[in-house]
Amino acid sequence: MHLALSALAFLATLYLVPKVAAKTLSRGLFGLDINKRGTAAGEARVPEAVGLAAGVAFLGATILSQAALEAGAAASHAALGCCSAALLLGFVDDVLDVPWRVKLFLPALAALPLLSAYTGATGVVVPLPLRPLLGESFLELGNLYRLYMLALAVFATNSINILAGVNGLEAGQTLLLALSCGLHNLAQLAGDGGGPERRAAHEQSLALVAPLAAVTAGLLCFNSYPAAVFVGDTFTLFAGMALACAGVLGHYSETLLLLFLPQVINFVYSLPQLAKIVPCPRHRLPKRDPGTGLLHGSDDLNLLNLSLRLSGPRSERDTATNLLIFQALTAAATFGVRWLAAGWWKV
Amino acid sequence: MHLALSALAFLATLYLVPKVAAKTLSRGLFGLDINKRGTAAGEARVPEAVGLAAGVAFLGATILSQAALEAGAAASHAALGCCSAALLLGFVDDVLDVPWRVKLFLPALAALPLLSAYTGATGVVVPLPLRPLLGESFLELGNLYRLYMLALAVFATNSINILAGVNGLEAGQTLLLALSCGLHNLAQLAGDGGGPERRAAHEQSLALVAPLAAVTAGLLCFNSYPAAVFVGDTFTLFAGMALACAGVLGHYSETLLLLFLPQVINFVYSLPQLAKIVPCPRHRLPKRDPGTGLLHGSDDLNLLNLSLRLSGPRSERDTATNLLIFQALTAAATFGVRWLAAGWWKV
Repeated sequence: MHLALSALAFLATLYLVPKVAAKTLSRGLFGLDINKRGTAAGEARVPEAVGLAAGVAFLGATILSQAALEAGAAASHAALGCCSAALLLGFVDDVLDVPWRVKLFLPALAALPLLSAYTGATGVVVPLPLRPLLGESFLELGNLYRLYMLALAVFATNSINILAGVNGLEAGQTLLLALSCGLHNLAQLAGDGGGPERRAAHEQSLALVAPLAAVTAGLLCFNSYPAAVFVGDTFTLFAGMALACAGVLGHYSETLLLLFLPQVINFVYSLPQLAKIVPCPRHRLPKRDPGTGLLHGSDDLNLLNLSLRLSGPRSERDTATNLLIFQALTAAATFGVRWLAAGWWKV
Repeated sequence: MHLALSALAFLATLYLVPKVAAKTLSRGLFGLDINKRGTAAGEARVPEAVGLAAGVAFLGATILSQAALEAGAAASHAALGCCSAALLLGFVDDVLDVPWRVKLFLPALAALPLLSAYTGATGVVVPLPLRPLLGESFLELGNLYRLYMLALAVFATNSINILAGVNGLEAGQTLLLALSCGLHNLAQLAGDGGGPERRAAHEQSLALVAPLAAVTAGLLCFNSYPAAVFVGDTFTLFAGMALACAGVLGHYSETLLLLFLPQVINFVYSLPQLAKIVPCPRHRLPKRDPGTGLLHGSDDLNLLNLSLRLSGPRSERDTATNLLIFQALTAAATFGVRWLAAGWWKV
């Protein structure tokens, strides 16, 4: 069922991207592909905000799967509302340029329905080595845990948006994150799954990440190097929110945070610029050597420039590939840590 | 609680409208106020899609009221998702011009979560005079009733959008409809209310129409004659969906349809043009007499022109007022019919 609907969503994305791209281009919604030759003259106008196509295909597929499966849990409906609100915010941002503080504040508001519909545990299992210290095997956090989930939703929604700058990076990291989440869901469902409630949680989560992976793959067909379309904040805000919803609905927000390690590093490393402690340009891009066409790390504080300074100058395609390899290694490490540490959490 | 949040939503709309208007104007999202003098020269550029401000204020207020009241019923969360999807569709339409068939099809998709979360009755009480004929006092319609609600959602979402053309008409009819729905909710809550389930239904419905009336009043401060801003499809699609959700959540979709009588007449009368049986221009506006400044009914088939042909030439302000008086009379008649006919439905 998920597979069939996700395949449909993939095809719908392939169908919609050129249509949306033509519309956005004709309405003046385009970006200049600054890392390419010839764009200084304003030649290569790349349609912006084309993530709208992927977002609409995703919402269609998840609505249909919820209606068909009668999996009408309050939390699932709330997740749809959150994703649709994030898609709206992203598109409004692409069209009207929403200020930064609004982009931080509105996702928190958009994520509230998810939290008030959340029925899972609001505590953490204390690792075995720490139990003698705390005297408890389960620490109930209550509203503190809800606050943590809210912060996670705000972080996830914005974090993909700020790890960007080379063709295919936003959609590429989203695809890897969605696949990692899906793998985690399937592994838990294939194992004992921890009872019917946990199984239902992983199924709801899978019902989000399967179509997300599908529409992102469809979008990547047009957005990978050399990009024919840009995904826009429309895509990055929506994709981040969809992943946060998957983590919350699946009750694995801690694992999700581990999978987001590259985004966490990028965020922490970017903080001095985001907080305007050091000057921050609109796009914090690497420098392109017009002779070789290679990208050189600039002084801007983000993971993109850091990777280029560590690896030396690279082509745009290789820069994206390197960062995506790091994302994949993070996923492998996360699953390794979970497996190794499983004994620490045995109830 | 609703009152305080609705007051806040009203103030938020007043605050946001000028900000959104400045943004949309600067991005080339404006309309020409064709019924005014001097606009042929392209002078009076009125910001479009400013309903976005009202929509965002509405979503914020309803999210907060749901979170505060823990009224986290699946259906309420689904209603938020529907309204947010309709707001997205409307804004995308204002920016990118979505084709008509998509505007008919997507609201049906957006309304699906509401229907799958709907837990109320899916049948109709048979009027007393008809019971001997049918031999039943309650007719269970099941999925046929869901299909009817879906059609209602699609109709309501589009119907406000097509009863338009003079300043203040879209927001004015929405305000009257929201107030009528709110009055109906309050009257039912003040009466016996029909048990705790019916009470909860009316409370959920009121939680939608109270902030809707508030943000629409805020928008009208800028949109009534002479309009400083246009509300856009952003507002009309979202407002129609919010009213449909209120009717479905409150289990009074039949009453809602009676309240929508002017929109039903406009739709039926417009059908030959909407179905392209007779030619249909983009805006089906009345003709303005440059000498007197009065509007004359044109040959286009809609309620606006019909009212002008019945009443004779009128100023733009009076044209809107006449149609809004008809809307108010419809509401009075609806409540009268409900009161007179109450005996026919006694279980």
